[in-house]
Amino acid sequence: LSEGRFVSVRKFLHEMPPSDVAHILESSPTKTRDDLWELLDSDFHGDVIEELSEDVRNGIIAKMIPANVVDALEDMDTDDLAETLSSLPDEVLQDILQSMDAQDRHRAEQAMSYGEETAGFIMNTDTITLRPDVSVDVVLRYLRLKGELPENTDTFYVVNRTDNLEGIVPVSRLLTADPEATVSDVMDEEPEAIPVNMPDDEVASMFERYNWLSAPVVDDKHRLVGRITIDDVVDIIREDAEHSMMSMAGLDDEEDTFAPVMQSTKRRSVWLGVNLLTALMAAAVSDLFEATLSQLAVLAILNTIVPSMGGVAGNQTLTLVIRGMALGHVNPSNSRWLIYKELAIGGLNGVIWAVLIASVIAVWKQDLTLGLIIAFAMLMNMIAAALSGATLPIIMKKLRIDPALAGSVILTTITDVVGIFAFLGTATLFLI
Amino acid sequence: LSEGRFVSVRKFLHEMPPSDVAHILESSPTKTRDDLWELLDSDFHGDVIEELSEDVRNGIIAKMIPANVVDALEDMDTDDLAETLSSLPDEVLQDILQSMDAQDRHRAEQAMSYGEETAGFIMNTDTITLRPDVSVDVVLRYLRLKGELPENTDTFYVVNRTDNLEGIVPVSRLLTADPEATVSDVMDEEPEAIPVNMPDDEVASMFERYNWLSAPVVDDKHRLVGRITIDDVVDIIREDAEHSMMSMAGLDDEEDTFAPVMQSTKRRSVWLGVNLLTALMAAAVSDLFEATLSQLAVLAILNTIVPSMGGVAGNQTLTLVIRGMALGHVNPSNSRWLIYKELAIGGLNGVIWAVLIASVIAVWKQDLTLGLIIAFAMLMNMIAAALSGATLPIIMKKLRIDPALAGSVILTTITDVVGIFAFLGTATLFLI
Repeated sequence: LSEGRFVSVRKFLHEMPPSDVAHILESSPTKTRDDLWELLDSDFHGDVIEELSEDVRNGIIAKMIPANVVDALEDMDTDDLAETLSSLPDEVLQDILQSMDAQDRHRAEQAMSYGEETAGFIMNTDTITLRPDVSVDVVLRYLRLKGELPENTDTFYVVNRTDNLEGIVPVSRLLTADPEATVSDVMDEEPEAIPVNMPDDEVASMFERYNWLSAPVVDDKHRLVGRITIDDVVDIIREDAEHSMMSMAGLDDEEDTFAPVMQSTKRRSVWLGVNLLTALMAAAVSDLFEATLSQLAVLAILNTIVPSMGGVAGNQTLTLVIRGMALGHVNPSNSRWLIYKELAIGGLNGVIWAVLIASVIAVWKQDLTLGLIIAFAMLMNMIAAALSGATLPIIMKKLRIDPALAGSVILTTITDVVGIFAFLGTATLFLI
Repeated sequence: LSEGRFVSVRKFLHEMPPSDVAHILESSPTKTRDDLWELLDSDFHGDVIEELSEDVRNGIIAKMIPANVVDALEDMDTDDLAETLSSLPDEVLQDILQSMDAQDRHRAEQAMSYGEETAGFIMNTDTITLRPDVSVDVVLRYLRLKGELPENTDTFYVVNRTDNLEGIVPVSRLLTADPEATVSDVMDEEPEAIPVNMPDDEVASMFERYNWLSAPVVDDKHRLVGRITIDDVVDIIREDAEHSMMSMAGLDDEEDTFAPVMQSTKRRSVWLGVNLLTALMAAAVSDLFEATLSQLAVLAILNTIVPSMGGVAGNQTLTLVIRGMALGHVNPSNSRWLIYKELAIGGLNGVIWAVLIASVIAVWKQDLTLGLIIAFAMLMNMIAAALSGATLPIIMKKLRIDPALAGSVILTTITDVVGIFAFLGTATLFLI
C-alpha cells in the first residue's frame, strides 16, 4: 500500500474515524507505523493517541517533540489525559509537563493526582449538576441555552450548596416529567455512588453487575467530583479478562503484537528463565534416580507421562479458580468447599486415568507391575495437582501475589516433582 | 448461615437487587444453591434467572416445573428470553414451549429465530421511533403522555413509512433542541446500523472501537428491527476474552465453578484424554532411542528440559497471536511479517538459552559435548516453537478450527517431538 502513494494514503486516513486510524496503526509493523504517523495531520494526533493501547502509544510519543505532544493532548478528556500521561516513562513525562503552560500543567497534575487503577483515575469531570429546588422547566430552558451536552451524558446529578450528591435524574426522565415539578420531585434519591479511590476492577464489576451506563463519583465527604461512563469501563473489563490469559503465558498484557524483536525477546525471557529453573529442578529430581534409570531405560521413556497429565489437570483447576476469584465467586466462606470438590474431581480423574494408563502400558510393554506402578504415580499426582491447583491461588491472593502470573509455574513445578518422585521412587522400590 | 434461620435469610434475599441474589447463587455449592432458590419468592425468579450464567441457570430451570418457568419468563426482554431459552436442553425447552399460551410462544419463537451469536439474538425490540416530519414539540408532548421510557433508552430512531432507518436523535439532543424544529432538522443522518445477522463478536468490537452506548439493528432491506445496548455487549466482551483463557486450559467457558463433581470430571476428561495421547506420542518418540537411553542414563535425566522450554516459548507466541487475532490486529496482509518477527525472536531466544543451558550442563555434568548437544537441540526447538506458535492459529483459523481450543495441545505435541528428536537424535550420533 504505502509504496509512494503517500497523498492518497493520507487522504484516506483523514477520512476515517480516529479509532479506525488507531486500529490500522496497531496492526502495522513498527516501521510502517512511524511512516503512517508522519503522514497524519497533527490536528488528528490527539484523537488518535486516545485510542491507542499503552505500548503503541508510548512508542509513538517517545518519537515526538514535546511541544507537539502538548498540542495533541490539549483537547483530551481528563480521564484520557491521565491515562496517557501516567503510562509515559518519567523523563518523557517531565519534558512534556515543562513544555505546558501553567493552566494545562495544573489540569494534567490534577488528572494524575488519583492513584492509577482507581475510580478517580478513570472518571471525567464534565458533569452537569442541578439544584434540587429549581423546576424542570427552568432546567430545560437552561439546557437549551447551553446547547450540546458533554459526550455520553445520560444522567444529571443533583447536588446541594456544598456539592454533596443528593440524587440523580436520568436525561430521559426530564423529557417525560411535568415541567412544573421541581428537580427534587423527579430525582432518584440516595443514588449509588462510587468512592473516588475504589479500585477500578471493583468499579467494573459494579457496572457489570448492575448494568449501569454511568455512575457518579464522590469523595470521602460525599461531594460529587466526577462521573464514570461505561465506555471507559469496557476497556477495564477487556483488560482484566485478558490479563489472566496473558499472564498465564508469561506475557505483559499490554504487549504490542508488533513490538520490535529485541524488546519482545527481553520481555519474554524472564518467563523462560523461570521455566528453565523449574525444568532443571525436575531434572535434578530425576538425577536422584540415576541408578534406577541406567538399569531400566523403559522408565526413562515413560517418565514424562505422569508429570504431563498432572500439569494439565492442575492447570484446569487453577484456571477455574483464578476465574472464579476474578468474578468474585470464590471467597473465604466457600473456598474450603471448593478445595474438597476439586480434590474429589482429582481423585476420580486419578482413578480413571490410572486404570487407562495401566492397561496401555501392560499391553505396550507387556509388564503388569510397570503398569501398576505408573497407575499409582498417576493417582498420587492427580490428587497433588487438584490440591495445588485449588489452594495455590487462594494462598497467593492472601500473600498479595498475582496468581495468574506465578500460579502456573509453581503448579507445574509441584506436579513435575511429585510425578517424577512417585513414578521413579515406586519403580526403584519394586523393580530394582 | 442457613442453619434454620430461613425467615431472616429470605427477608435478606428479597431486599437485595436481583443481580446480587444471582451472584450469591453462583458463589454457592449446588445444594445450598437449591435451598436458597426454594426460599426465594417466585415473583423474583424471572429477574434473577436473567442474571445467572448459562450453566447455573440451566441447572436451576431443569429442577423447576415448566409452568413456573413460564411465569418466571413472562416479563423478560426479548434478548434475555432468547438467551435463556436457547441454552436449555431440547426436551426441557419443548416442555416449556408447550406450557406457554399462543402469544407467549410466538414471542419466544420470534426471539429465537435469529441464529445464536448474531446481532438479532442480543437485540431488544423496544425501540422508540419518530417520523422525520413531526416537530420536536410534538415529540416532547408525546413522550410526556407516554411516561417512562424503556430501560437504557439513549437514542430515538427516525424511520419512514416503510420502517427504513433514516436517522437517529440522541435523547439529550431533544432537551437542547428548538421546539419548533422538525425531527429531520435535529437528527443525525445516515447513522451506522448493525445488520441483524452480524456475528456478535463483530458487534462487540464495533461498540468497543466507536465507544457506542447503543446502536440500531436493521434487516437486509435496511428496516429497523431493534436496538442493541452496551450492557448486553459487555457480557459478550467478557465472554470472548475469557473464552480464550478457558479454552487454552481445555475448559468450557461457561463452566460453573461450583458444578457437581461428576459433571466437572466428565467435561475435563476430554482434554486429559487428548493430553494422554500426546504424552504417549512423546514417549513413543523416546522409545525409538531406547538403545541410546539404556547406555546413557544422563540423557534420560535431561530429556525433559528442551521440550519444556519449547512448550513455554511456543505458548507465548501462540497466546500473543490468538489475542492479536481476537482484537482484529492480525490479518492476511501482516501475518507474514508477524511470522518473520516471531521467528527472529525464536532464533534469538534459542541462542540465549542454548548458551546458558550448555554452560549449566558443562559444569553440572562435566561434559562439554553433552552441553553442545543440548544447546543445539534447544536452538532447533525454539525455532520450531516460534514457527508453530505463529503459523498454527493462522492455519487453524482458515480451517475454521478455534485456535484457543486445540492450538496449545498441537503446539505442545510439536515441541515435544521436535525437542526429543533433536536431543536424543544428536546424542545418538555423537555420543554412542
